[in-house]
Parts: sequence; structure tokens; C-alpha cells
Amino acid sequence: MDFIKTPVKGMPEQLPNDMAIREYALRKIKDNYKKFGFMLISTPLIEHIENLTNKQGGENEQLIFKIMKRGEKLTKSESLEDLCDCGLRYDLTVPLARFYANNGENLPLPFKALQIGESFRADRPQKGRFRQFTQCDIDILGDSSNLAEIELISATANMLNELGIKELKVRVNDRNILRAMALSCGFPEEHLDTIYIILDKMDKIGLDGVKNSLLQFGLDPAGVEKYCNMFAGINDNIDCKQFIGDKLQGYLSDEAIENLQEIISVTSNIASKDCQIVFDPTLVRGMSYYTGPIFEIELKNYHASVAGGGRYDKMIGKYCSKEVCACGFSIGFERIISVIKENQLLPVEQDEKIAVLIAKDVDKQKVQKTIEKAAELRKQGKTIMICPRNSNAKFQKEKLSAYGFNNFVEIFSDKGEL
Amino acid sequence: MDFIKTPVKGMPEQLPNDMAIREYALRKIKDNYKKFGFMLISTPLIEHIENLTNKQGGENEQLIFKIMKRGEKLTKSESLEDLCDCGLRYDLTVPLARFYANNGENLPLPFKALQIGESFRADRPQKGRFRQFTQCDIDILGDSSNLAEIELISATANMLNELGIKELKVRVNDRNILRAMALSCGFPEEHLDTIYIILDKMDKIGLDGVKNSLLQFGLDPAGVEKYCNMFAGINDNIDCKQFIGDKLQGYLSDEAIENLQEIISVTSNIASKDCQIVFDPTLVRGMSYYTGPIFEIELKNYHASVAGGGRYDKMIGKYCSKEVCACGFSIGFERIISVIKENQLLPVEQDEKIAVLIAKDVDKQKVQKTIEKAAELRKQGKTIMICPRNSNAKFQKEKLSAYGFNNFVEIFSDKGEL
Repeated sequence: MDFIKTPVKGMPEQLPNDMAIREYALRKIKDNYKKFGFMLISTPLIEHIENLTNKQGGENEQLIFKIMKRGEKLTKSESLEDLCDCGLRYDLTVPLARFYANNGENLPLPFKALQIGESFRADRPQKGRFRQFTQCDIDILGDSSNLAEIELISATANMLNELGIKELKVRVNDRNILRAMALSCGFPEEHLDTIYIILDKMDKIGLDGVKNSLLQFGLDPAGVEKYCNMFAGINDNIDCKQFIGDKLQGYLSDEAIENLQEIISVTSNIASKDCQIVFDPTLVRGMSYYTGPIFEIELKNYHASVAGGGRYDKMIGKYCSKEVCACGFSIGFERIISVIKENQLLPVEQDEKIAVLIAKDVDKQKVQKTIEKAAELRKQGKTIMICPRNSNAKFQKEKLSAYGFNNFVEIFSDKGEL
Repeated sequence: MDFIKTPVKGMPEQLPNDMAIREYALRKIKDNYKKFGFMLISTPLIEHIENLTNKQGGENEQLIFKIMKRGEKLTKSESLEDLCDCGLRYDLTVPLARFYANNGENLPLPFKALQIGESFRADRPQKGRFRQFTQCDIDILGDSSNLAEIELISATANMLNELGIKELKVRVNDRNILRAMALSCGFPEEHLDTIYIILDKMDKIGLDGVKNSLLQFGLDPAGVEKYCNMFAGINDNIDCKQFIGDKLQGYLSDEAIENLQEIISVTSNIASKDCQIVFDPTLVRGMSYYTGPIFEIELKNYHASVAGGGRYDKMIGKYCSKEVCACGFSIGFERIISVIKENQLLPVEQDEKIAVLIAKDVDKQKVQKTIEKAAELRKQGKTIMICPRNSNAKFQKEKLSAYGFNNFVEIFSDKGEL
């Protein structure tokens, strides 16, 4: 026979103890965002292939799991391309855009959405990275003010704190600042994306590395010199307005600076002592669809990002017949789960969990009495599992202990009672 | 551009109010089964095509969404069949069997699993029926005693009651009784499946309809007469032992009858007054993998089944190297959601949900003060949504009311305060 025991390559399985952590985190996340007025929605896992391959998804579009047409449509297909009509989503942004185009009229304006669901990428599987993974996105559609950024950052920092994840650093920047800095150094518009990709490596290759890469790419040495000088001596305490000063006069509006300054100061004011908000002119964020402020939350102890997002005012409109401004935050759910595991942040369950093990020779009356008693105790809120007692009960109890049972009642014909 | 606004055919979208109902039900379901010692696990949405097409899934195997191979493997494919290496699961049973084969050694024995997740069937979409839908299965693996059936039925009836779904009828039968009844009438073994399919229509076509269909199929008229006489006058109060009497002597073991009798009496004893347990010799259950007791929960007011299951001792073993007895219950999650909606069983939220609408002309200091106040109130557990006040605030408030906001605070430059 052809049964295969292992999961499809890169596909995750969750055993009970892992699921308990995920469930705990999911409830905390949902309850937190609800408190900030976000509404949970759900979009299908399968999307039109046209929507998935529309160049909004960057390199993720190379990683789509494509679904074959069905029935006659399949047999009539004339090419490999033509065999497929839909695919599994690679993120929650494309489905959100389509969802809003389809349902926006029925929703409040602005609309604050929370989405939690599986996405799929046919990536090379790596340790701890799967081809199916849970994503968690919060988005505010239809709010052009920086109330959107402020709410996203506050709500997300609060969520992480409530999960016991402390020592956060929120790094904030603006795509318009990135752009103004590059243009003010005489770099040509068409090379902006490449310049951003190089700048994005700052934390790995350092300022010298960035400089060399920019020169190697062939940019004007004087411009590169000027550009890199701007970044010299940056640290977590630089003031956005002061940093930019009049360097970018003519390249950046005062409003953009004011706007960012305000996001930083308001979120700082309400942030817990475990959360630092900093301006970071080197922050890039990968996706090219961002149009304004961008932000990322870093776990200081990990030097790793746990959430990232920004304003993307031009994307949702491509699905609708009108412009819809938008701002979103994507939470690294799988990263959060790792952090909870590594730091044992899952609260220890205090509740009694009773396993009732009934030996084989117990008569029906006693079994029945035990089940009735269990029904009574469950009504009082107790957790009770009833099952046959194995001949190797020691091993059975060990396994049950490993899965949280902390009280064992063994029922024999002549002794033991629930 | 090629953006498509509507979902892929048959794919569901959940708006916030619908999601709230689903979330409510999911938490109740999970908390209920946890109290009975079931453990939540998760299996991948994508399965090996070999596992999905192994003839365990009946006609569902015709409805698989097939996923194309990727990269070189795709271009090297030589036939339509060869283009696909995996597919979306059509139920949770195949993934459970594979999961248990892969992880069983690390789990308690018996293992009580709760799975909740999406399944996919490329069915003809109908009103209220989707090609992606949430399934909810509970299974007990490795318990050959009827404690398994008793726990499954009790836990599921309790779950429905806790959701406010009353007037339940649990119908119970045994595949061995079905088989003995047919064989005792001289029907040939190879026609059993067809006979079951005909019998399964009893509630639609009546006893006369069943009789005619059996005759039409070409079974011996004397046998058909005898067979149908057995079902004459059945009602919800018949006693299993009495009904079978000595009719099936030699075709059915006393143990099988005792076993079923015990399931019925014990579950009846602990059932709430809203739940009736009955023996129903016409109950068939579709899937051919059942090997013993089978059961179904019917909503009396709907004449519709809301959950069904049974014992399937021969299936899991096909994935493992040894036999694993099993008994499971599949909950009609989407049906439950409909019932909750139709009967308005979602408890009305008592909590205050505040929407703070900030007018455009409010100065930055007042905005900041409002945000800080909101942060304080949220710490106290309040739900607060902050956003700009639209020029058409009446419409905005109406929409927010429709999504549960019940307190509006409008902030203007000269009035209004949170």
C-alpha cells in the first residue's frame, strides 16, 4: 500500500502541548485587539491565481502552491500555465484587499481588521520554518491620519507585553524619508529599490559594508559619501526632526516630519516601561508597496523582529474602484510562539486535571457509578478524562502527566473510587 | 488589470459579526472537550495525494483540490496525473490517521484528540454549503471498550447543551446489527453496501419505499418481506435487546447487543433532560469504514443531523504497522453556526464598547490627551476604538452600532472629552 506516515515536506503538525501554547497566544491576541476595537474577519485560503500573481507580492509570487483546474476545464487545458485557476494564498494582504473591495460598503469606515490564518509558501523548508504557517495581520483601512499608526503600534506593543514578552524596541521610519535621503544625494529614482535593499543590510554589514555595496553598484562616489555621512553616529536616541534638520529641505515636506515625530512621541507617552520607541532612518521594510511611515518591533534580547508594518495607501485601491488609504501590521505569530516556548511564558495551569483509569475487571455497576460521578464533577467545572487502565499503568500515567494530568484515580473491582 | 473582487467560487468570507459567532462557538467547543480530557491537535491542510486517494474517503476522493508539483518536477511531468503530488484534505480523518501513525508513540494511550480545521471539497456549491468549510472532529484512539462511545456521546451532547442547543435526539445503532439483519434475511454479503444505502433513505421514502427499492434491486422477495417486517412498528422507545430478541441468533453475538445496550443506558442516565438517547436500527451512517457502534445527534426541531460518528477499528492501522482501534465523532460545525444564528443563541454582549470619534480640527494636545485617557481605560479592561470622525458621523455611528459599539464619544476642538 502507498500510505505515507510523514507529513508533506515542510508541513507542520502540532502536538497537544504545542497546541496549548498556540491556543493561549491566540486568545490573548484576539482579546487584546478586540479591546482596541479591531474586528476579526476571515478570508478564504484559496485565491484567484490572477490576484496572487499581480506583482503586489514580490518574490512570494514565485512560491505559490498552485491548484489544478477540475473536470472538463482541466482536460481542455492547453499549456502548463493554463492548468491552474487558483492557488493557496502566500499572505493575508492580497485576501484583505479583495475582501475589502467585495465587502467594504457594509463595514464601518475606517475599518479595523484582525485576520489570523494559515498562509503557504513553497519555500525551501528550514529548521523552524514551515511551508504552511499561521499569520496574524492587523490593518486599518480608510484612516489617512496617523491615529492609524498610533493605534497599530500601541495595540501591538500592548499585546506583546500581555503575553509576557518584554524588552521591546519599536523602530519607526518613513518611506518618504528614505526616498528624500537618497534623492538629496543625487541618486537616480530608478535605483531607489536597490539602494533600499543595500541599506536594509546595515545591521549585518555595517555602515562600511553599505558604503562599499553602493560604490560597487556604481553610484556616484560623492553621493555615496554624502549618503553614508548622514547615517554616521545614529543611535536609538536621535530625534527625528533634529536628525533630518534642514538636510532634506525641498525633498521632504514639513508635514511628513511632523507626522512621524507625532507618532513617535504619542506612542512613547503611552508605552509601558518595557517598550522603547525609536526613530531609525535605516529601517527599510521589504515590500515595495509601502507609501509612508513604516515600523518594526524588535525583541531586544533576540535582536530579531517580531512584527512589522507600515502605511500602504495605493494598494487596496487597485482592487476597488476608488482609493483606499491603509496601514497595517503583520505579527510574526510563529516567532511569538518560539519566544513563549523558550522563555516558558505559558502560565502553569493551576487547575486539577483528573485522569480516571478503570481496570478491566471492574463490574458494570461500578463503571456506571464512576461515569455518573464524573458527570457531576464536570458540571462543577472539573476536568476529568475517563479511560481503561492499561496493564502498564505506570507508563500510562507518565504519558498523561507529560500532557498535564496531575491527579490519577485508579478504579479496581475492590478498591478505588472517584 | 486582472484583479477579481469576488472570492473563488464556493469559498467563504466571514464578516465580523459572523466571525464573532464562530469564535464564541469555537471557544465553547474547545473548553467543553478539554473538560472531558480531549487534547487539541493540528494537522496540515495539505496531504500527500497518495493518502487522499487510497479509497478510504469514498466519493470525497472525487472532490479533491489537487496541487501542482513545483519547479523541475512539474516540467518533467509526463501526464495529467503526474502533475500533482499533493492535495487539500477533504476531511480530518485521513490526516488524523497519518498523524497518529507518525506521532502515536509520544502520545498517551488511549489518545483523545480534538481537531478543528478547514477541509475542502470541490463540490457543486449550494446555498449555505461551501467548498472550504470548518470541520470539528473528536476521536478516541486505542480504546476498544465502550467507554469510548460513552465519552464521545456524553461530551458532544454536553457541548451542544452548553451552546444552548436543546431538544437533542441521539440515535444509536451498530454496524454488526445492520449486517446481521441483512444476512439473517438471506441477502448476499456483496450487496450489503447497496442494502444500507437503500435503508438509509427510510426517513425520506418510508418503509414501503425501502421495500420497493430492495425488490427493484432484485433481492429475493421473501427475504425482503422478512427484512421489512423487522422494521415495522419501530419507534423511539424500542428496547435494543427486546427488538433484536432471538431474531438474529447465530448472526450476532450477545456481547455486541450487551455493548450497545450499555452505551444507551449509561449515556441516558447522565444525559440532560434536553437529550434523548434512542436505539434506531435504521441508522446507517455513510462511510463504509465503520466496524461497530454508530451514532448520530439529531436536532428534533430541525429533523437534521448535527453530529455523527462511530467505531472504525480497521482504518488507523492501515497507516501504522499495528492495529489501532478507534472511535470518532464528527461535529457539523457549520450547521451549529446556522442554528446559533437562526435561534439567536449568541449571548448579547453586556460590555460597554466605546467608539471615540475625533473631529479633524482637534489640536494635537487634545488628541494626545484623549489617546492617553484611552490607554488608561483599556488597562482597566474597557474596549475602546479610536478613529477620525467622518463628516457624515451619523452614518459612521450607525455602521459602528451594527458592529456592536454602544457608546460614542465625539471629540471636537471645543467640546467632547473621553
